[in-house]
Amino acid sequence: MDKGLLIVLSGPSGVGKGTVCSVLRKRLPELVYSVSATTRAARQGEVDGVNYFFKSKEQFQDMIARDALLEYAEYVDNCYGTPRDFVERTIASGRDIILEIEVQGALKVKEKFPEGVFIFLMPPSLDELKQRITGRGTESQDTINHRMSVAVEEINLLEHYDYAVINDQIDAACHRIESIIVAEHCRRDRFVKNLTELQAATTEKA
Amino acid sequence: MDKGLLIVLSGPSGVGKGTVCSVLRKRLPELVYSVSATTRAARQGEVDGVNYFFKSKEQFQDMIARDALLEYAEYVDNCYGTPRDFVERTIASGRDIILEIEVQGALKVKEKFPEGVFIFLMPPSLDELKQRITGRGTESQDTINHRMSVAVEEINLLEHYDYAVINDQIDAACHRIESIIVAEHCRRDRFVKNLTELQAATTEKA
Repeated sequence: MDKGLLIVLSGPSGVGKGTVCSVLRKRLPELVYSVSATTRAARQGEVDGVNYFFKSKEQFQDMIARDALLEYAEYVDNCYGTPRDFVERTIASGRDIILEIEVQGALKVKEKFPEGVFIFLMPPSLDELKQRITGRGTESQDTINHRMSVAVEEINLLEHYDYAVINDQIDAACHRIESIIVAEHCRRDRFVKNLTELQAATTEKA
Repeated sequence: MDKGLLIVLSGPSGVGKGTVCSVLRKRLPELVYSVSATTRAARQGEVDGVNYFFKSKEQFQDMIARDALLEYAEYVDNCYGTPRDFVERTIASGRDIILEIEVQGALKVKEKFPEGVFIFLMPPSLDELKQRITGRGTESQDTINHRMSVAVEEINLLEHYDYAVINDQIDAACHRIESIIVAEHCRRDRFVKNLTELQAATTEKA
């Protein structure tokens, strides 16, 4: 059987990752969304295993120790991470899974899961990026310089990704991501791997 | 400007390359089809530069000598080849061009144009391949053995291709090829090259 893919969708803050993901969710109902583990308490209506995997601090530390997280980070005293097991079970079942994550987290995932498909969502144009950096003209030169250096760092991180998708229009960006998923399933190296496994299985049967 | 892509569509004889190409032509009217050079005489209604580039034997030999053909071959006393110039002018203008060609020709193109996107059209299943090889049971064991060894050679050549597209249904195969074209335009290495050129152009302007 054809294995599923881990699709990692990342990009600079404010580029629209969340919006693109929610539209993709409607367009590709068969795509699985990665569920994070967290130490924060469940809010009303949140379901364990659907919204998050809710863990105690001890359980979370244990997951780190067992290398059971593809990446993790701490925000406002709570820990969040991507359970490796959920990703691996999903792709073993032949389904694709998407993980929406900020740039640094995506790079940590790549270290542990290099066979993932890493997509960098880009702002529509360099001009727009420049305008965003310059802002409304109310920022100090220091602030502008800092934002510019962050933008340069972000573009440099693009080199660790497989694809750059421009988020000019949400539907166009989603169409590109869908195309990338279809194309990756056709990639000869993935195909040959599956073919070799299939041939081996066929030989065993014969 | 974003450069176009050379898409090379190949695969074993009888897999349906021509049919897939003619359907793609309707689905993607903006895609340019590579026009071959030939030494054979034009038939009634054929237009130079549209159906073929009609060349004398001397002109064709001169193109070979100038390395002006990405590949060439001789069939029934006539020469056929793929003019490099037509491909390069098309992609420089930002348009994608597709070349439908048999397996050996595609590998020659790859030597001269490794940045092309090489797609191998596959029969629907290994079982079907086996059935086709075994035929209707009227072939001699020698013929079956010969066909099987050809099939093995073909699968071995798959390793030189970027993608394997299964031709189970023509529309499904066309959709996969269209997805590959969109995805290849998003590939980070192509994107960064264009981005670097864009940045250089912007800097020159400033």
